[in-house]
Amino acid sequence: MADKKRKQKRRRSDLSSDDEAVLPFKDILIPDSDLLETLKQLLGAHNAVSTSTSSSKPLTLSDLNLSATCREVTDLSLSSVQSAIETLILQVAHSIVAGNGFSFQVPSRASTNQLYVPELDRIVLKDKSTQRPFSHVSSVRKSTITVKILSLIHQLCLKNIHVTKRDLFYTDVKLFQDQTQSDAVLDDVACMLGCTRSSLNVIASEKGVVVGRLTFSDNGDMIDCTKMGMGGKAIPPNIDRVGDMQSDALFILLVEKDAAYIRLAEDRFYNRFPCIIVTAKGQPDVATRLFLRKMKMELKLPVLALVDSDPYGLKILSVYGCGSKNMSYDSANLTTPDIKWLGIRPSDLDKYKIPEQCRLPMTEQDIKTGKDLLEEDFVKKNPGWVEELNLMVKTKQKAEIQALSTFGFQYLSEVYLPLKLQQKDWL
Amino acid sequence: MADKKRKQKRRRSDLSSDDEAVLPFKDILIPDSDLLETLKQLLGAHNAVSTSTSSSKPLTLSDLNLSATCREVTDLSLSSVQSAIETLILQVAHSIVAGNGFSFQVPSRASTNQLYVPELDRIVLKDKSTQRPFSHVSSVRKSTITVKILSLIHQLCLKNIHVTKRDLFYTDVKLFQDQTQSDAVLDDVACMLGCTRSSLNVIASEKGVVVGRLTFSDNGDMIDCTKMGMGGKAIPPNIDRVGDMQSDALFILLVEKDAAYIRLAEDRFYNRFPCIIVTAKGQPDVATRLFLRKMKMELKLPVLALVDSDPYGLKILSVYGCGSKNMSYDSANLTTPDIKWLGIRPSDLDKYKIPEQCRLPMTEQDIKTGKDLLEEDFVKKNPGWVEELNLMVKTKQKAEIQALSTFGFQYLSEVYLPLKLQQKDWL
Repeated sequence: MADKKRKQKRRRSDLSSDDEAVLPFKDILIPDSDLLETLKQLLGAHNAVSTSTSSSKPLTLSDLNLSATCREVTDLSLSSVQSAIETLILQVAHSIVAGNGFSFQVPSRASTNQLYVPELDRIVLKDKSTQRPFSHVSSVRKSTITVKILSLIHQLCLKNIHVTKRDLFYTDVKLFQDQTQSDAVLDDVACMLGCTRSSLNVIASEKGVVVGRLTFSDNGDMIDCTKMGMGGKAIPPNIDRVGDMQSDALFILLVEKDAAYIRLAEDRFYNRFPCIIVTAKGQPDVATRLFLRKMKMELKLPVLALVDSDPYGLKILSVYGCGSKNMSYDSANLTTPDIKWLGIRPSDLDKYKIPEQCRLPMTEQDIKTGKDLLEEDFVKKNPGWVEELNLMVKTKQKAEIQALSTFGFQYLSEVYLPLKLQQKDWL
Repeated sequence: MADKKRKQKRRRSDLSSDDEAVLPFKDILIPDSDLLETLKQLLGAHNAVSTSTSSSKPLTLSDLNLSATCREVTDLSLSSVQSAIETLILQVAHSIVAGNGFSFQVPSRASTNQLYVPELDRIVLKDKSTQRPFSHVSSVRKSTITVKILSLIHQLCLKNIHVTKRDLFYTDVKLFQDQTQSDAVLDDVACMLGCTRSSLNVIASEKGVVVGRLTFSDNGDMIDCTKMGMGGKAIPPNIDRVGDMQSDALFILLVEKDAAYIRLAEDRFYNRFPCIIVTAKGQPDVATRLFLRKMKMELKLPVLALVDSDPYGLKILSVYGCGSKNMSYDSANLTTPDIKWLGIRPSDLDKYKIPEQCRLPMTEQDIKTGKDLLEEDFVKKNPGWVEELNLMVKTKQKAEIQALSTFGFQYLSEVYLPLKLQQKDWL
């Protein structure tokens, strides 16, 4: 114990020798044992809330009597996808034989057909759909593309392999013309079949990494994320082959940017404070969103987010939390509820005395994005977030996570994060 | 054996049922055992060449009597970097005390100071350098920045931690003003000290992944890349903590794009044909280049490259092989000699009957880039490459690796690559 304290003291004094700048909070020494206690309380409180609010399972559209007017998709097995496609094509054949021609009924994914459901804290699709008849000059191409995509997905089901959207496009460049067309119909098909895009075995390029107190299986191989060095484990592009998640972590730390991730991975932050560290290196991709949700759901851990103090940081947080408008039909499977905003928050800039020259002036576009966010339901429902965002728009200042480097490279892992955690300073 | 053949047959017939298009070479059945023999020959020939041309170690500038007129840097240990900085600053102090003021002598990294050395097959720096006096209005800022960067690197040496360029920038935003300034001086400092940028413990964001017949240690953890599922192992950002490479592979397959990597990883191509598969997902980053070089050097394996058939594919290949102009001072440590161009080559488009609609017309800019490449020394020295590039510029057609999906999603891993390898069709 005495040894531990000495070690901490050494760390702290290293830091102060770093820089002539006055280090905010440098004199506060938090024993690791106290901090661990705080984190255990966080986990306990998190579990108490999740068991009390939803005694057995999370709320669904049908619990809210919204299943008739709203639409969500679910994960389907490959064989279910296969039967769904066969049933659909049989219906089409019957319709043709009966002399009614053929037409697809396609759920609308337009923004006018989207709805934020506060009880679920997610964006979902409403029930509007449109006809896509083959025998109409305006939709003959789109219905042909739909048939082609259905047939390709059917092949993937038979072979049980995964392909990228780009692969799909290249199977018939003459028909699709450009990739946006095959991509859009792919989302249509997922909606029509009522399944997630990952159920279709079409995957996006992976870019996320994970490191820390987690073991899981990737395509049959057991992965121990405490033994992944500094590089970490690349998050698999196909969530359906991920399983057997085990962890002794007390929380998940979701990091926006690569640089902060590298700092925490090298310092093995997860050994001092048992946690799992995950990043998508910027914009959240589908694979990382699915992986984060799976961790949160299976391991029942609180998620704390470390993002830049700018409108895009908050927007990224909201994509993880509530979904993107683009994929709102799939929000139930892609979103991770109840993510806490740990930092960097606009109020941190003064609290942690971030020097003026490390803060950046917000552009007109930044300010507009910030004001737009204030109108969003998922921000409005959290008074703390509204307050922070108002402060950002008022001061017209933003800052990156890296701005903390001004106090020494390890200020993030050695002072800022421990202090934040100790003070339970999340929203 | 009979069983093996049956299995192959099944694979092939799966493919033909895929698509109505005529599959090029679908009837050629290569037994895996024959192909393995071919690959063993490739490895043998590769080792014979590397031992005969450089009996003990690769050529250096001094072997060519160029060390007086050309400049390259080497990997230095942290303590050597530390002493080099201290020596440099002592010299400055002596100069000031002697009344001569202070000035840095900085190697020029301009393109006029770069030279392609055919014997080394690399771009290196010539010996021009410039003075950077503190007491001159045009260089006072730059010399101040140089002192600051030297002092930050000195701190990193003392602590033995790694930081990103972005971290470095944020330690003094007022001085650096924008990140390009601290980045440029960082490269200057590496040149001045005669060491690689990675020796300075300043790392770039990682984006590469590796999978297949390789084990190595990352920051003390042993990694088995045959057990990394489909996601693969993220390539560590800091090569100095990578070691203990072991492999039973016969070659390294360098892949330009993520989509092709995913196909090969899911099909566990490396189990059928013992290899290591690596990709930087587009533009080669420093971490992936260092990792590829280390694999090639330590494991003594031939490297075969699979890139798009366009000028950028060849450019990417050349960055891995000969270095980028930007980092030419560090070319010896960043480049992997003797990479073979496996595909997709311009002549493949007709040979493999890639349909017209999957080929893309080259833009004016593409054609210009292609013609510029034809003037580059590293292309000229390889008559096969010149021929292919001439064909590309003449036909004005390009194609992505993904264009092979037109013959079925697994055409790449089941037909194209085995055939290429069997026919030793690399340049």
